[in-house]
Order: sequence, then C-alpha cells, then structure tokens
Amino acid sequence: MDFQLIHTDTKSNARAGLIKTDHGEIETPVFMPVGTVGSVKAVHINELKSDIGAEIILGNTYHLYLRPGLEILKGAGGLHKFNSWNKPMLTDSGGFQVFSLTENRKLTEEGAEFRSHIDGSKHFFTPEKVMDIQRTIGADIIMAFDECTPGDADYAYAKESLELTERWLERCIKRFNETECPYGHKQSLFPIVQGCVYPDLRRRAAENIAALEADGNAIGGLAVGEPTEKMYEMVELVNDILPKDKPRYLMGVGKPENLLEAIERGVDMFDCIMPTRNGRNGQIFTKQGVMNMRNEKWKNDFSPIEEDGASYVDTLYSKAYLRHLINSNEILGLQIASIHNLAFYIWLMKEARKHIIDGTFSQWKPMMIENVTRRL
Amino acid sequence: MDFQLIHTDTKSNARAGLIKTDHGEIETPVFMPVGTVGSVKAVHINELKSDIGAEIILGNTYHLYLRPGLEILKGAGGLHKFNSWNKPMLTDSGGFQVFSLTENRKLTEEGAEFRSHIDGSKHFFTPEKVMDIQRTIGADIIMAFDECTPGDADYAYAKESLELTERWLERCIKRFNETECPYGHKQSLFPIVQGCVYPDLRRRAAENIAALEADGNAIGGLAVGEPTEKMYEMVELVNDILPKDKPRYLMGVGKPENLLEAIERGVDMFDCIMPTRNGRNGQIFTKQGVMNMRNEKWKNDFSPIEEDGASYVDTLYSKAYLRHLINSNEILGLQIASIHNLAFYIWLMKEARKHIIDGTFSQWKPMMIENVTRRL
Ligand SMILES: [Zn+2]
Ligand SMILES: [Zn+2]
Repeated sequence: MDFQLIHTDTKSNARAGLIKTDHGEIETPVFMPVGTVGSVKAVHINELKSDIGAEIILGNTYHLYLRPGLEILKGAGGLHKFNSWNKPMLTDSGGFQVFSLTENRKLTEEGAEFRSHIDGSKHFFTPEKVMDIQRTIGADIIMAFDECTPGDADYAYAKESLELTERWLERCIKRFNETECPYGHKQSLFPIVQGCVYPDLRRRAAENIAALEADGNAIGGLAVGEPTEKMYEMVELVNDILPKDKPRYLMGVGKPENLLEAIERGVDMFDCIMPTRNGRNGQIFTKQGVMNMRNEKWKNDFSPIEEDGASYVDTLYSKAYLRHLINSNEILGLQIASIHNLAFYIWLMKEARKHIIDGTFSQWKPMMIENVTRRL
Repeated sequence: MDFQLIHTDTKSNARAGLIKTDHGEIETPVFMPVGTVGSVKAVHINELKSDIGAEIILGNTYHLYLRPGLEILKGAGGLHKFNSWNKPMLTDSGGFQVFSLTENRKLTEEGAEFRSHIDGSKHFFTPEKVMDIQRTIGADIIMAFDECTPGDADYAYAKESLELTERWLERCIKRFNETECPYGHKQSLFPIVQGCVYPDLRRRAAENIAALEADGNAIGGLAVGEPTEKMYEMVELVNDILPKDKPRYLMGVGKPENLLEAIERGVDMFDCIMPTRNGRNGQIFTKQGVMNMRNEKWKNDFSPIEEDGASYVDTLYSKAYLRHLINSNEILGLQIASIHNLAFYIWLMKEARKHIIDGTFSQWKPMMIENVTRRL
C-alpha cells in the first residue's frame, strides 16, 4: 500500500490524499461502507460501484469468522472473490464485536474467550489468530486486535487496557511479518491508537504507534459514549503525533458533521454503520439536513427524495413513496434509504476533498455543517 | 386496451399475443411480478425494467387501500406516478385478501365487512367501492370484486358463491361504466370465472362471462388447494368457452410447470408470489431445476448461481455466496433471489412465446417441464 499526500489545507489540518492498493486506488478523505457479514446490507455490489461510488468497503473479522467461516472464505479465494467486490477492502479486527456482542467473554493476557452471539459456541481469539483470520479473509487493509476500552472507563482501567493492547499489537505485528497473503496481493496492517479520553494515555499510544512506521494508522475507542468535544480533542492530540505521510483512520465515526470536524483535524478514512442502519430506520441524510421518513409531514410530499441528490434513487422515488415503504416495512424502503445515505456520505467526502484541493475547505465546512445538522 | 393474437399453436391451444395499453405493450404469454403494497418486494423499479424485463406488474387493491390509502394515491396521481412504474399495471380486486387475510369478515349481498390485518380497523367493500378504489389506483387492467371460493367447497356452497359473484360482477360493470379513470388513461375491467372444481358451474360462469365481451377475462379460484389435475381440467373447460380474441388471465398460478401446462391450454397471463416469496425463503428456479439455497451442498459451490441465467445476478454472485447471505439473513440474499427468480419466470414466458411462434412449442414444453421440475 502506498499513500500520497496530494494537498494539505493551509488553514487547517485537512488533507487530500491518494491510497494505492493492489485492488485499486482510494481518494481520501474517504468513507468506507460497512459490509459486516460480507455484504453491505440491502445494497448490490454493482450499486456500490456505480450508483454509490464506493472505493473501499469494510468486512468484519468476528462476523466473517462465524459466518460463512474460514473454510468457505479460503475455498472462495478470499472475501474479494466471495462477494465479488474486486476493489479495495478493509477488515476490522473484531475486537469491538467480541467486547460488545458476545456474552461471558473472558479476557486474559493470551487473548479473549467468547461465545458466539449466533449459537453460543465457544471461541478463543488471540492476536495471532486474528492475524491469521484476516490473512484468510484477504482484505487489503487489516487491523490490529485490541481491547476497545469503554468510553467511561476510569484512568486505571484505561491504562491497563492500553498496556494490554500494546502487548497485543507487538504480537500482531510479529505474526503479520511471519505470514503472507494466501492470494498473492499485498496486505497492510494498521495499528490502533487507544487510551480512552486520557490525554497522556493517547499521547503515549500515538507516540509508540508513530514509531512503528506502519502503512497507515487508526484511532479507535472513540464515539463510544464520550462527549463529542472529548473525541475531537483526542483526534487533534493524536494526529499531532501520527506521521503526516501515512493515512489516518478514525474508526466507527460518525454523523456527517463528525466527519467534517475530523477531516479538519487531519483524518483521512472513516467507517460507520450510521448511513445504513439509521437509513433502515428511516433517517435520511441530505445536503439540506436530516429527514425522519416516519414523520407524517412527508405523507403527501411527492417531491423527489433529494432534488439534486447523489444517487439515482433520489429522483426516481418521492419522499411520500419512501415514507410509505418504510412505514409498510417494505424491503425496497431499506434499499432506497441505504443507497441514498451511502451515496450522500461518499458525495460529502468527495466534496470535502474538492474544497481541500482548491483551498476553500475552511469556508465550505461551517456552511456545510449548518446544513447537515438541520432537522427537516 | 387492445389484444392482437399473433400466433396460435397448431398442436395445442398455446397462443402468442400482444396487448396494447396506454402505458405500453405486453407480449403474451406474460408473467406479472406481484407488487402487493406498491413495491415488488426487494426489487428496484429500474431492476424490474432493465434486469428482469417485466412488462407489467401487479398491485393489490386491499393492501393499497389500507396503505398508503386512497388520499395519498390520489394526491400522487395514481399508483403509476406514486411508485414510478410507468408501464402497464394490473390491480387485483382484493377479494382474495379480504377472504384470506382478515378476521371476522361478514359476507352479505351488499358486500364484505372485514377488519384490517394491520390495525384491526373495520372496513366495508362493495363491488362499487372496489371499482372506485381501482379507479383511484389507476391500473391499466382492473379486476372484478368476487368471492374467492375455497378449493374444497362443496357443490351447494360453490354454486351459491358463484351466484353472488355473478350478481357482484353486474354491479362492478355498472359502476365501471358510470365512472372513468381520473388520470385520463384507459382502464379495462376483467371479469373473473369462478365455480370451484365443478364443471357445470365453471361452464355456466364462462358462458355468462364470454357473453360480456370484456377486454380480457380471468380464471380465478384455482391453485387454492384443489388437485393440480383438476386445475388443468377447469382451465381447459373454461378456455374452450372464453373468447379466443381476448387475453385470458389465470390468477395466482404458479410453479414454472403449471405455467407451461396452462399456456398449452390457452392461457396468456399469469401472476404469482411464488418467485419472490419462495425466493426469499431460498428457493431458486433455474432452467436446470430447482435449488434450495439453505442446503449444505451449496456451501462450497463457488460456481455462478446460474451459468447462463437470465439476469446479471446469476454470474455476479456464486451459489456459495447466495447460500451464505440467505443463511445469515442478509437482505442482499432476498434481493438476489427475487431478481433471479423473476428474471427466470419472465425468461420462461419469452421462451414459450418464441417456441409458439416458431411452431416448436409441443416439442419444447415436455423437455422444459422435465428440466424445471428437477431437484438440484
Ligand atoms: Zn458509528
Ligand atoms: Zn401463487
């Protein structure tokens, strides 16, 4: 993987870049749609490419390990072949899922024991095993296995948790260096900066990770319940330390305004289930503001979902029709909302990139934040 | 509406025809995807057109009356405008749903009182009201309101039921003739031949309906539990009587083999929820046979869903991937199965038409029945 910094904003830390992988290029800032179980819910692979314009999608190690399982993924020749997405892909390490979805998990120095949320079967993840799984999945970018510290952890807990994450990171790197991608393409391992909301822990974590000179670096453990201002503070602090010539990935964030604020603070990559999950619940993000499609007010509004929207669904279907579909639990409603919201997120990133490159990001950003936070 | 008989098979009663409506042409035999609540479940409007090749879709009076309701449909300018399907459309009268979905229904000479399956609210359908509702929905072809006699009804019940249906049909026609389409296009009313499995009742019903010289005629109350041979027998008997120069619509049928047998007996139009509903449950119809995608045997089968399938999903996705999606309850699995099955049904009708026109239907049909009834 190669990262080229195209332009850095003079009035902020916003950056426009270009990531090159064996499966193609990614223009940053980039939003990565989440394909948890090997499919971006309610969206066809060709829609992701043509109608949404996604350049990279996510898979999830925990979910893919349980279903379809490694034997099938290996037989397919990796996730790219299995789900027909032949562009860049990133897999989350599954740490977050092990700590949030499973029951009776037992954390030891060696790893994490947990029970599947599907059938209760017992499993054990170690840093080494998670590297091996991600080799088998075969994503272009893979993530270190870490403990995702809760947002309200006290200092002592956060410090211990960070220290475990750092020892696990060493083991991840060792195993990563001893193995290779079974499908012949290059994989890059991103370490994850943890440290909760404690500046000295975040600083120490960022410094340790900066020294590793990885292909890219991630910031984890944010947007997990802490105040939004704390999140921005941590992002600033960490990005001051992380190498400028490598992409920075803020994990699991967030609302459109969060993305813009983080871009201003030097973040290049994002993922979040918000556009798809909230979309399925009827929340539609537009460049004029947010709509709740369950609201009565759209009942008789036969105007397009978004007049100058980023995807064909915006003018093909009306607000009243989308409201009807969502209200009647019709699957097509989930499909339309998912395509619309993903296309909007990706449009927003492309727009941000344009304004970074032409030097107007600092004027554009506050105006856009006012728009995207409006309730329609 | 206009119907042109292009060719009748010399060795059977199979026919190739062309229906012309104000929203475009329909080549028969035709399969009509069912869009119960104003959307064909899990399928985009543009996919219906481009990827599936549907020429006409169905809406359902009972469902659309409850949701979104007449006020919204009227405000939209009819269902064509509301769901963006600007090609031919047919609405079922809702009779079947009133008798199968609702509780505490009360049948009188005047009409049917029932409670909504959604919120239990009380409603009353009369033949006149059902005509008015279908005028407001605005489909190109609308259906008479009838009592859908159960497949196991005794003779006395079936006779009484047919007599009620005939009196209702008179009222439907009267109201239809007194009203017009609020959107300016032409609507055609199809009467429905009932009579259960009793030849003399079916004969009488078909004779009465033939005398009406309607734009097209439907055969209802079949595929509701009676033996398949009985169904074919009734279709034969009725089609001997129904006018040859008008399209014949066999309602709610059926499996691929049922369609081919009915085409041979002179049927031109079909609808069924089978391709979509069974698809969502993992049943995939192909020209080589039927696959149950939940079956273990597809786990490691990375070959295309159907090598020479009728839609792009067939080669974009593999059997193993579709099995994984269906097994993991991923929405994309429902989407793929629905597109595939609908495209297959429509391919089968186009293929039948080709063989009717080139005079090879009678050789092709038994071979195709052998194929489509195979378990893979
Ligand atoms: Zn998120
Ligand atoms: Zn059916």
